[in-house]
Parts: sequence; C-alpha cells; structure tokens
Amino acid sequence: MPLNIALVHHPVVNKNNEVIGAAITNLDLHDIARAAKTYGVARYYITTPYEDQKELAAEIIEHWQTGHGATYNPARKDALALIRLASSVAEVREELAAYYGQAVFVVATSARQQNNPIRYAAIREKLDRHEPVLLLFGTAHGLAPEIMETVDGIAEPLCGPTEYNHLSVRSAASIIFHKLRGM
Amino acid sequence: MPLNIALVHHPVVNKNNEVIGAAITNLDLHDIARAAKTYGVARYYITTPYEDQKELAAEIIEHWQTGHGATYNPARKDALALIRLASSVAEVREELAAYYGQAVFVVATSARQQNNPIRYAAIREKLDRHEPVLLLFGTAHGLAPEIMETVDGIAEPLCGPTEYNHLSVRSAASIIFHKLRGM
Repeated sequence: MPLNIALVHHPVVNKNNEVIGAAITNLDLHDIARAAKTYGVARYYITTPYEDQKELAAEIIEHWQTGHGATYNPARKDALALIRLASSVAEVREELAAYYGQAVFVVATSARQQNNPIRYAAIREKLDRHEPVLLLFGTAHGLAPEIMETVDGIAEPLCGPTEYNHLSVRSAASIIFHKLRGM
Repeated sequence: MPLNIALVHHPVVNKNNEVIGAAITNLDLHDIARAAKTYGVARYYITTPYEDQKELAAEIIEHWQTGHGATYNPARKDALALIRLASSVAEVREELAAYYGQAVFVVATSARQQNNPIRYAAIREKLDRHEPVLLLFGTAHGLAPEIMETVDGIAEPLCGPTEYNHLSVRSAASIIFHKLRGM
C-alpha cells in the first residue's frame, strides 16, 4: 500500500500565523486512524518533538492495542495499529525511504488556494502506479512555511459551494482519503 | 440551500444491536457543523428526546454563539449557527416540510451494504434541482431499524479498497458532504 500520512504537531502555525507546537488530541488519533484503515493507508505517523507528548500518544495507542480497549473494540485496535510516532517530518521521510527503498513523494495539504497545486487525480494516479506518497496534515492552523518549502507539492484545497473553509483536520483527512482511494 | 442533515441520538443501536439512546458529544457538534458550513448545508439538526441532553447541546452552542467562544473564534460561531435541536426525526421532518412548503426526501446513511441503495449521484441531482433532502446519520452503531423503515431510501455505504469499514460518523458525514456538494 503506497499511501502514507503524517499528522504534524510541530512546526505548525496558530491563528496569528506564529510557529508553534500543538498538543496531541485523542480524537485525531482515533478518527484519522479509522478513516486511514478504511481507505488502505499503510502508515499513519504522528509527529511531535516533545517526549511527553509522544508518551501520551503511546499510552493511548497501548490502551487500544493491549489494554482493555483491545478486547472491548477489536476494530479500533486494528485502526490504531497503523500509528507510528516520529519526532519530525524528516524522520518520517527517512523511515519511509528505507521501507520502500526509494524516496517518497511528499505532498502538503492546505486549506488555502495555491499556485500550481497538485490535483488529487494526479496523486491518485501515482498511487495506482504504486509510487509511494506521504501526505502531510497540519494541526492547529496548518503546516508552517518551513515545512511547505521542503515538500514536492501542495495539494489543491477542498472546496464546497460556499466561501467558508474551516474543516477540521479530521474531516479534511477523511475526504482526501476518499478522493484518493474511494471506490 | 436544499441539503439538511440530522444527527440522530435516539433510536440508534449499540454494538449488540440493541436500541439505545446515545449521549451528545461536543466534537460531533463542532466537526460536523464545520463540514456542514463548508459544504452549504442549510440546517444541522441534533435529535435527542432527553431534556438534559438538549440542555447540554444548547450550552455548547450558546458558548460559541454569544459567550467567549464567539469572539475567540467567529468562524466557529458561523458553523454552530447551523445547529437546531429537535426531539425526534419526525419533528425534524415536520419543521423542514413547513420551511420548504413540501415534504423533504429523507435518506438514511449506513455502513452496511443495502439492497437497492440510493447512489450519491442521484441525491446530488436532486439537490441540483433544488429538491429538499434530509440526510440522517446515526450515532453509536447506527440508526435503529424503526428509523430505517420510515425513510425514502438508504444511501450506498462508503467504500475504500479494504474490508475495514469503521468510519466515525464525523468522517462519514464529511465525505458524504463532499460527494454531494464538493466542487
């Protein structure tokens, strides 16, 4: 399965466009893991440089992998098994390059209109050709410019029939998975 | 705007297929309201027969409409303004019939394969013709049979390339909005 994702908690921007580190939230792990499992994502990375935040994520995953959650809800166990922890996007790229034996194509997602965005149809074609792809999602108010500058492309923003464009990262990720791997 | 939705908290089923009433959760209100606003949903009903649950929902909405949340995050205020509370699906149908001056076409959503499901393309065509539609989403493990028996149709389930099919209602609603109203 060539599709991989990372939910980036640092560096992201806040509402004032300042670079921050965001906190891990339980529901980002669950909702995005469930959608990722449904749509055939290979690996779901949670990236944060903060050790205490990694420990929190590890505890949540552990509860559903081997704790009470594993017997209470086996389907959830399968979804959360996709999650891996990493300190940075650079670390994710290295791990995936080692896994696939080639550099992965890295696409940032953004709610903003872009010059020369990558169309989802083009990413879908890459996946159909089994070319490994890493999609980056930003928490808080989105990926910081220093991440945007390192990627191979930025995906077109999701659009409805309104000017309003404030999807949660959970909603955006779900819709994008369907666009890329939906039947 | 002809698309309306209801998030049904009773009657729904639990993992043992028993009919229950589910608790309102903060994030269902927020995530689905944000996606609904993005994709041009007219009204987002929360249905529960329980007065204390209605009060909880009203307090959450109030916080973001007139409380600290309204100034902290005006975009969130606009999204939550779509939410209305109702005691039952029957009450929602009555309100919408009065609003549109005609009965609305009611479609249940389900993760299960159906006989003769309604395709999203067909619902999209109805919306394009300005025919009012009400989509029902179930909390817990889905809408109870007594709801399924009263609707005009059941939508095709969302499918990825895997056998796994355990999307959160927040993910499913977001994907369906995009299928119906995405640009």
